[in-house]
Amino acid sequence: MKDIRILYGEKLKDFRKKQGLSQEELGFKSSLHRTYISEVERGRRNISIVNIARIAKALGLPIRDFFE
Amino acid sequence: MKDIRILYGEKLKDFRKKQGLSQEELGFKSSLHRTYISEVERGRRNISIVNIARIAKALGLPIRDFFE
Repeated sequence: MKDIRILYGEKLKDFRKKQGLSQEELGFKSSLHRTYISEVERGRRNISIVNIARIAKALGLPIRDFFE
Repeated sequence: MKDIRILYGEKLKDFRKKQGLSQEELGFKSSLHRTYISEVERGRRNISIVNIARIAKALGLPIRDFFE
């Protein structure tokens, strides 16, 4: 079983790309820095529940979709 | 819409009680401190994805169940 940070990061990258958004654009929509988005996508950050919610809202997806 | 920390905390408390576990017992199973569990249940902590995964594993539930 992969680390949850890696699994979440892969899902996030997948959803972001499906919506045709750059890391900059998602950063802007979620009020998070582009480099933070990049690190989360690579599983380098232990993202908090508040930021998980912020990103889900920016992508218009329920949080549970990131944990299928 | 309630704060995600409150929503998650309520779900956690509900699942923990349904399994007949005390905060101490869940703390032991998840290697987290009882007071930390208590604070998370009251929405006072911005829990990280690693601890979300640890608690879900301790309760034998998929993470997505906490975000229904």
